Amino acid sequence: MTYGGYSDSIVVDEVFVLRVPKNLDPAAVAPLLCAGITTYSPLRHWKVGNGQKVGIVGLGGLGHMGVKLANAFGAHVVLFTTSPDKKEDALRLGASEVVVSKNEAEMAKHAGSFDFILDTVSAEHNLNAYLDLIKLDGTLVMVGASPSPLPVAVGSLLFRRRALAGSIIGGIRETQEMLDFCGEHGIVSDIEMIRIQQINEAYDRLAKGDVKYRFVIDMASLK
Amino acid sequence: MTYGGYSDSIVVDEVFVLRVPKNLDPAAVAPLLCAGITTYSPLRHWKVGNGQKVGIVGLGGLGHMGVKLANAFGAHVVLFTTSPDKKEDALRLGASEVVVSKNEAEMAKHAGSFDFILDTVSAEHNLNAYLDLIKLDGTLVMVGASPSPLPVAVGSLLFRRRALAGSIIGGIRETQEMLDFCGEHGIVSDIEMIRIQQINEAYDRLAKGDVKYRFVIDMASLK
Repeated sequence: MTYGGYSDSIVVDEVFVLRVPKNLDPAAVAPLLCAGITTYSPLRHWKVGNGQKVGIVGLGGLGHMGVKLANAFGAHVVLFTTSPDKKEDALRLGASEVVVSKNEAEMAKHAGSFDFILDTVSAEHNLNAYLDLIKLDGTLVMVGASPSPLPVAVGSLLFRRRALAGSIIGGIRETQEMLDFCGEHGIVSDIEMIRIQQINEAYDRLAKGDVKYRFVIDMASLK
Repeated sequence: MTYGGYSDSIVVDEVFVLRVPKNLDPAAVAPLLCAGITTYSPLRHWKVGNGQKVGIVGLGGLGHMGVKLANAFGAHVVLFTTSPDKKEDALRLGASEVVVSKNEAEMAKHAGSFDFILDTVSAEHNLNAYLDLIKLDGTLVMVGASPSPLPVAVGSLLFRRRALAGSIIGGIRETQEMLDFCGEHGIVSDIEMIRIQQINEAYDRLAKGDVKYRFVIDMASLK
């Protein structure tokens, strides 16, 4: 008997147990196990760091972690969003610049200037607009899976030897590394804690994108 | 006055002069300055070498150089073609295996097994069929530019952290390195030499794909 994830106590193989830094709020740590590692892993794998210009596309659950982590790695972070009203929040979370992606003139100013862009948008959108912003040997990494194939302009890949890649979640060792890093830098997810009784309301708000930036259920409310 | 490329003698800035290895036939070296460097550069940049499984898509002017070079770098070379009748030639040029890409069952056998695939096809074609053959952290590199955007299944990029990249020609330094490498390994392009008077016939044959693998004009025939 291992019991389930909603239990007070469960039995787990020690290989899959993670240490949560004591200085972090456990409720705000919960989404790190998904949104945190999903963004941490590609930022680390592609060696995002000091002095680099890094773009984060989308300011949702994944995007807001991408902004916090890329900023903590020392990058100059540019947040791309279709919603001008997200600007203030993006700057608060660690972005140095915010670009409204629907504004072509604003996008064109950044052509060929990014070392790395992390695209967290899972809906269909125009990848080529972001590929054009990548500089020589830079990479655009998708962590959201569009339901249908996205058209890629091959010419954009050829001319600066750009790459389009994907990344999904991360392993246990790297998840522990991410938790330790977040502990050292005091990084958690921005969350809104709800009681289990509010789950339907939370679901409706989620569908409208009305959450900053993850709902976390207080399991004590289940009793 | 610098004169043009069809002259007996021309004036060139020394920065743009290349040394052609004396042991190679100059006529068969000519296409190396385009098809040779176009395939050499990405194979080198992505460190294709010993013990790797490498695919070359298409057996034309670029593809036949890709096969020769990847083989010389020590890779296990698999040639992908839509034409079963190119099998014998591919094996002669250095491929260890030939896969007819229209055969889905044959393609499926190679799923997730390639370190690197070089795609030399400039016509529209299904990239996702090749992405699925790439293993963890492998790369599919395009050197042909499809005229219209190609649909990319994002899920295929996510699951093995695959990358889709592009590469175009190469610089002077790397072109010299390629020529020296070809000199050491006795590599040239397979060519068919024509007289300038045959140019229209050659053009018609080119349009039909009837050339193995580059036409070279003997400029002495112009006199």
